[in-house]
This record gives sequence, C-alpha cells and structure tokens, in this order.
Amino acid sequence: MPQKVNPPYLLFDVGGTDIKSALSDDAGNLLGIRRVPTRHGTPDPAAGLIDQLHTLGTDLMAESPLVKPKAVGLLVCGVVDETHGRGVFSANLGWRDAPLRDMASKAFALPVGFGHDVSSAGAAELRFGAGAALGSKVRNAVMMVVGTGIAAALFVDGHPVSSGGYAGELGHAAVPGGLDCPCGAHGCLETIGSAGAIAKRYAHATGRQVNGAREVLEAMNAGDIVATRIWDEAIEALAFSIAQLCSSISPETVIIGGGLAQSGEALLGPLRLALRKKLSYHREPLIVPAQLGQDAGLRGAYLKAVEAKENQP
Amino acid sequence: MPQKVNPPYLLFDVGGTDIKSALSDDAGNLLGIRRVPTRHGTPDPAAGLIDQLHTLGTDLMAESPLVKPKAVGLLVCGVVDETHGRGVFSANLGWRDAPLRDMASKAFALPVGFGHDVSSAGAAELRFGAGAALGSKVRNAVMMVVGTGIAAALFVDGHPVSSGGYAGELGHAAVPGGLDCPCGAHGCLETIGSAGAIAKRYAHATGRQVNGAREVLEAMNAGDIVATRIWDEAIEALAFSIAQLCSSISPETVIIGGGLAQSGEALLGPLRLALRKKLSYHREPLIVPAQLGQDAGLRGAYLKAVEAKENQP
Repeated sequence: MPQKVNPPYLLFDVGGTDIKSALSDDAGNLLGIRRVPTRHGTPDPAAGLIDQLHTLGTDLMAESPLVKPKAVGLLVCGVVDETHGRGVFSANLGWRDAPLRDMASKAFALPVGFGHDVSSAGAAELRFGAGAALGSKVRNAVMMVVGTGIAAALFVDGHPVSSGGYAGELGHAAVPGGLDCPCGAHGCLETIGSAGAIAKRYAHATGRQVNGAREVLEAMNAGDIVATRIWDEAIEALAFSIAQLCSSISPETVIIGGGLAQSGEALLGPLRLALRKKLSYHREPLIVPAQLGQDAGLRGAYLKAVEAKENQP
Repeated sequence: MPQKVNPPYLLFDVGGTDIKSALSDDAGNLLGIRRVPTRHGTPDPAAGLIDQLHTLGTDLMAESPLVKPKAVGLLVCGVVDETHGRGVFSANLGWRDAPLRDMASKAFALPVGFGHDVSSAGAAELRFGAGAALGSKVRNAVMMVVGTGIAAALFVDGHPVSSGGYAGELGHAAVPGGLDCPCGAHGCLETIGSAGAIAKRYAHATGRQVNGAREVLEAMNAGDIVATRIWDEAIEALAFSIAQLCSSISPETVIIGGGLAQSGEALLGPLRLALRKKLSYHREPLIVPAQLGQDAGLRGAYLKAVEAKENQP
C-alpha cells in the first residue's frame, strides 16, 4: 500500500478482454473497483475506447462525489509508446498509432499518466508486491504474466525497458519444441508454455475438453501421463526462456504472475529445478509468485497517475 | 575520434590472451599502442596483473615523457563488477573478487576508470564507431563479439546493462542444435555460432585441420557441402540468439564485431535473412559490422578514463 498522501486519481487498466477501473483515495486505496468487458467492433477503436472510459469514469465519480481525481492513470495492452503517449498497435482492440494519452486527457480535462499494462503491472509488483516483499531493492527483474498468452515487463537498473513498446514480448520468442504461432512466427513460447497452450494441447491430445490449465494439473496429479508430458513441456519451455534472460540481462528476480501462477509451488518448484539444470556460472534468479493478483494493473495505473501529477507543468 | 580536449590518459585492455596498452593525447589519439601476451600462472593472479600493467605503463610513459596521464582506463575480461571496481571472476586469468580498480589506482597513484572489456568496447563502438556512423543516436543496441567465443554488450535507453557483471553473456545461452559447453551448460551459442566452433566443427567433421573460420568460408565458396552446413548452422544459431533479444530488449541495432565479422557481407547478409524469417511483428534491428577493430577496447578504456577524471572528487 502506498504510504505517501496523494490526491485522488482515476484509474483504468484496459486489456483485450476487459477493462478494470477504480478511483484511488488519498491513502492510495482503490475505491469502487469494477471490471467490464472491453467494447469491440467500434468503427474507430481508439475513439470507442475513450468513449467507454469516459462513461466508466463518470459513473465512478458519480458514486464517490467527494473524491475529486486530479489525474488519470491509463494502461492499455498491445505495443505502447509510453514516451509519446501512443497506442502503437493492438491486434485485439484494433487501434494503430492512436494518441490515446492526449485523447484521454481531453476527455477528462485532467493530466494522464499513460503506460503499457504488463509493464506498469510489473512496476507495481516491484514497488508494492513481490518486489517489496523481498525487502531489499530489486533493480534487475522480470515479471512474466503467464495466462492465455505470455507477456513480460523487464527492469534494468531499476528502470523499465520499453524500446518503443517492443520490449518484453517473451511470449513470442522461440523455444525448442514450440509450435507455429498465430503471430506469424514459429516456435513461440506462448504456443507451449502458456496456461492457454497447456489447456489447448491437452484437449487436442486427449479429445477431452478442459476448463483451463488447472484441470491439466489435476489430471497430472491423478497420474495422467499425457497431462504430465504437457505440463513438463510447458515448464521446460518457460525455463528455457528464463535461462535466455539469465545470459542477456541477468535478472536477480523473476516474478511469475497470471493465471498459471495460481498453481503456486506446483509450477514454481519444478520451474526452479528446470532452470537450475540449464545454468552453469550464470547468476540464478529468485523465482517468486506475483502478489497483487488482479489489482496489479490498477496499482500500476496509480503509479502512472502519480507520475503525471508530479510532472504536470 | 573524440573532439573534446582532454588530458592524456593511460589505457589498458586486458584479455585472456593479450593485453593492449596505449597512452591517449589531449585530442584522444592513441599513442604507442602495444600488444603483449597476458602473463599467466602467477600465484596471485590479481597482483600479477597489476604488476604487469605497472611495467607496461612505466615503459609507455618513458617513451612519451611529455605526455603526463591524469587517469587510467582499465578494462578486464570475465565477470566484472564495474560499480565496486572488482574483477569478480575470470576463468582464464584466475582472479576471484579482486579489487582491481583500487589496486591499479594505488599502483599508478591516479584515478582509475574500470570496466568490462566487451561492454566498454561496445560503448566505444556506439560512440565512435558503428553507432556514430548511423548518424542518429542509437539508444537500444547490442554489440556481439563473435570470435573464439561470443560475448556481448547490451545497451538499453543509452545505458550499458551490467547486472553485476552477469549481463551480455550471449555465448552461453542455449540455441537449438547447440552442444555441450566447457562452461558446464548444454547448447551454448558459442559451441556452434562462434568462429572457434566453425573451425573446430569443420576439422572434426572432415579430419582436415583449418586455420580459422575464414578457411571454412573459403571451402564453402568452393562448393564444400560440409563447410556449407557448418556455416549455415552457425548463422542459424546466431540468428536464433538475436531473435531472442528482439523479443526481450528489442535493440534497434546489432553491431557484429570479432574475428567472424571480418567475413563481412558473407556473414551479415545471410544473418539478416535468417533473422527476418524468425520475426513476425517484432521490430527488426539493423545488423551492422563493428568499425573500430582491434582498438575498440582501448577506445572503451579511454571513455572509462574520461569518466574517472570527471568524477574525481
């Protein structure tokens, strides 16, 4: 929880499936958190999004008339140019190079802190969640969100790595055994190491539909050898990608979030072992679970709103 | 060439095989460049190194008595903790956690700028070589030195990535088809993508000893199918590792240096093609040759010496 007194903010975390919104009070508590499906299929996707956010924000403020937000924190998915406040590209939501920060600022008549959803959620995990729990300041870290797909936030020397929005796309780096990916590349980690891939590959191999990776884990625990193979291959793939990072940016800590992280030590224990087998003189990172859960994005939006307010001319 | 007037510096680039040393004059020109074998087998490797550097430095200064260095730039190989001025580990040269910066400072009674050889050579390439040639400021870049082994320098938002000295070890990240590596890991890029590996694998496959990767390239150009396979596998492995970087830190530019880069477009052309095939929506980096050649390290030592002089209390 943030300790410093701050003015209230209006917060949005826009994903491909849903939008989370909330107000924060001056102690940093989230008020009126709600989750609604992201509107799809509007002719102008960027304008449609801002319109939906405006409705959500107006509702939130009507519910808490005493809370007067002084800035907006807005996170979106896809390729995001934080420096110029633009949504560069979202395959799911359809915008191309849209000036979302300025559009939101105009709609709310407030300064807007704008960021990438996973990158900002990672910053929040470092500041308020898994990073804070480690006690000492973590400066080189990776947060991997392993769910339907796989995305990541990279931190080097305490700063997020953006590279114009192209950094952290670990779900679309190749791993041995990876499959053809809808993104157009071959072998992407996401095709074998994500919760989505685990469920899909198990259903494909057995003809038995499952409701997510958790059911595959349960099948494995009940002795199902197909489930065991698919689960092991996912862990091997995740360990491969983390080992690559150990040789490039060498994070001290890898925080695992997203749906698959809810498997806890059933995932993290074998993942640590698989990683250790791949390393020699490399520095072995701590692998820890994310702690903020579904609210990590709103907490990240909060950090962006604080930035926007502090940098206001 | 540096344009700013600076005082003279005393510069060392310590590799596993040889030490390069020089003075720089106030225009940044390198004077009296020499290259001597690194002394091995002294009982205290760190003290032995400092002793050898002192002899080299004394000789250089005796040759140019009018040049009075005001700081030392010292680069060493291995795992280097630049922040604390320590050589953490060198498999080749044998030191463990040695305070090389302070030892050199005491030996020369001068401030010492201390850094990693490849990281600092990369900084010099960005500042004076391949990066400068690109005109605009390159902020996210990787310099890969592909020689007997493979090492790299990573830059994010214009800053070198160190991670306590463990960053940039791309030669020891796994690639498909990679072999057992003397480092203890399996599949390291270095075992298949380095100039050393190309020569060794060709000799092993044909029973014909070759004097370096260049001879394998010549054999390929003469139609040798074994040479073609080994060369192609090296390029495929290098492209795999660069593609991993495109999904993690997403460099705008990849500078290729070291012995293998002397093959020029015979290497870089196919490498660009192989990389392109692996990418989808990722940002494709420019792949360019290094330009400073053997002097990159001394130029990097120069940058470190400038830093040390400017930060002098």
